[in-house]
Amino acid sequence: MEFHRRGTSTCIFPEMPVVVAAASVVGPREGEGPLGRLFDMVYNDTLFQETSWEKAETRMLRQALDLALAKAGIDQTQVDFLLAGDLLNQIISSSYMAREYDIPYVGLYGACATMAEGLALGSLLVGGRFARYVAVASSSHHDTAERQYRYPTEFGYQRVPTSQWTATAAGAVIIAAKGAGPRVEAVTVGRVQDYGVIDPNDMGSAMAPAFADTVWRHLQDMSRKPDDYDLILSGDLGKIGVGISHRLLLQKGIDIESRHQDSGLLLYEMKPEIGAGASGCGCIASVFTAKFWPDLMAGKIKRMLLVATGALHSPTSCQQGESIPSIAHAVALVSETA
Amino acid sequence: MEFHRRGTSTCIFPEMPVVVAAASVVGPREGEGPLGRLFDMVYNDTLFQETSWEKAETRMLRQALDLALAKAGIDQTQVDFLLAGDLLNQIISSSYMAREYDIPYVGLYGACATMAEGLALGSLLVGGRFARYVAVASSSHHDTAERQYRYPTEFGYQRVPTSQWTATAAGAVIIAAKGAGPRVEAVTVGRVQDYGVIDPNDMGSAMAPAFADTVWRHLQDMSRKPDDYDLILSGDLGKIGVGISHRLLLQKGIDIESRHQDSGLLLYEMKPEIGAGASGCGCIASVFTAKFWPDLMAGKIKRMLLVATGALHSPTSCQQGESIPSIAHAVALVSETA
Repeated sequence: MEFHRRGTSTCIFPEMPVVVAAASVVGPREGEGPLGRLFDMVYNDTLFQETSWEKAETRMLRQALDLALAKAGIDQTQVDFLLAGDLLNQIISSSYMAREYDIPYVGLYGACATMAEGLALGSLLVGGRFARYVAVASSSHHDTAERQYRYPTEFGYQRVPTSQWTATAAGAVIIAAKGAGPRVEAVTVGRVQDYGVIDPNDMGSAMAPAFADTVWRHLQDMSRKPDDYDLILSGDLGKIGVGISHRLLLQKGIDIESRHQDSGLLLYEMKPEIGAGASGCGCIASVFTAKFWPDLMAGKIKRMLLVATGALHSPTSCQQGESIPSIAHAVALVSETA
Repeated sequence: MEFHRRGTSTCIFPEMPVVVAAASVVGPREGEGPLGRLFDMVYNDTLFQETSWEKAETRMLRQALDLALAKAGIDQTQVDFLLAGDLLNQIISSSYMAREYDIPYVGLYGACATMAEGLALGSLLVGGRFARYVAVASSSHHDTAERQYRYPTEFGYQRVPTSQWTATAAGAVIIAAKGAGPRVEAVTVGRVQDYGVIDPNDMGSAMAPAFADTVWRHLQDMSRKPDDYDLILSGDLGKIGVGISHRLLLQKGIDIESRHQDSGLLLYEMKPEIGAGASGCGCIASVFTAKFWPDLMAGKIKRMLLVATGALHSPTSCQQGESIPSIAHAVALVSETA
């Protein structure tokens, strides 16, 4: 029996799935950032006319999915699976969003790696011919995440320089068996890494080993070098995590620096309150859908590796003295014109 | 292009994946129940020699997976994906379990439907030839779940008759591309249903519509009747949910009563404190792996439909006045000798 696998961790496709549409919806701070004009929709406040931030996050996710469906020119009845996840307990943003659709729903939790987890699984479902269209969506909301993981934002606590700013942002994509758009060439699902970081205000350090391991495995599995990619886009390593991950990869003889950009360093102007950069499931979800999916569509990028990273702790695990395990999943995308 | 789909929601397999191994680990109360002697491992207390219930849940999950790997006669290096999820915030039981293995990890959240979500996705990964072996694991722990969703168990609050008792149990299976064991014939991934139930102490009522919808779709998609199955096994509808689901299906002209058993009514002797029955991700996970997987292996059951149900709320969504959305996923299994 032949399997569509390479090396230890990578799946390839007999026929490459296509990312036929991508859409983004963000909050006001994200709209004022360097990528502000690229987002499909920017809200002026973080409540989005809802009565709670949680409901606002659900609404943002729904609007991202509606925009992606519209761009793909399909309606929900054509979608075979909806894969979604977010940072909230019991991923309520995603499940309450899914309630509004009549689509088979698969809930995911991969912390800030969720968008890549969804892209990987969605591609595998399409690549295995179990779906014509798969929708993938992921979000985070600054105010819902802060009050759940740390303190309510009204409290105004003093942030430390290693802190990252959870983005208020959602992204959605449509993966199809055929159509126009960048192809998914390969996916590398990551393994949990834990180097013993215990500070939940320093997630970049916790996630860097997972990023390095997945990038290394992907390159090994595909017999490639960083230069084979125009861009290696990480999720939200931030300033601290980027530095550590470069050093970890250099120890394995891999220098990605000239090809690497981090979503966490692209979303905001780096003001003091942003700390080490942006974070949250919505960070890479919105940066990829707003900036790099269009670049792939336009052929400005020929091949990129999207690598989202997630910290898999909870407030409870941290209170119990546990260190922070992390994970990273990689998805290789090629421009249609490549 | 040909797709491996039937009807609106069901995937079938060109070559059926095989559930080559299954294992269960439970706590003391589950060990004293009617299925007590069938479990692979029964603990005498709920701490399992750990320092917290959360660590105990992780340990239980790990032992279920180790037992499943041993029964399959493989080691972790042969496993291409580990799919797991549980009820805790940020699914920490699963992610901390996954940290102990060197296997590509996909975190899932489907509440008490997680085992079926994993069985479905795992079968699709194997069926698409992206994996030779996939491990699926899911757990719940009475004391971790109670203190997270309701009150710490030490508080001893008065339970209502519609309450269900969260099981302390874990189950793990190995799905393979070939080998001896029951085959996965079809999977039906469910859609979110919400009939407006707002009482988090009555999850059977909230989940019944999802169960009925998924069973109905599966039978429609496969052009089958309930009698085509020796057994339709639901997750944890409990007394209330079973009654409602039968009535909902009868409205569509489908009578499953003579074929239907509910894991939530099989796990415990129905003492008053159990309320309407057992619940939790570990309920169907342990009941299936301990009782019905062996029955399929022995040919006592020729064909069964496993349908796990999940309530997708959180304490936050309930506090905000939201109703409880629910979901159910179905997996059709046939005995090797069928």
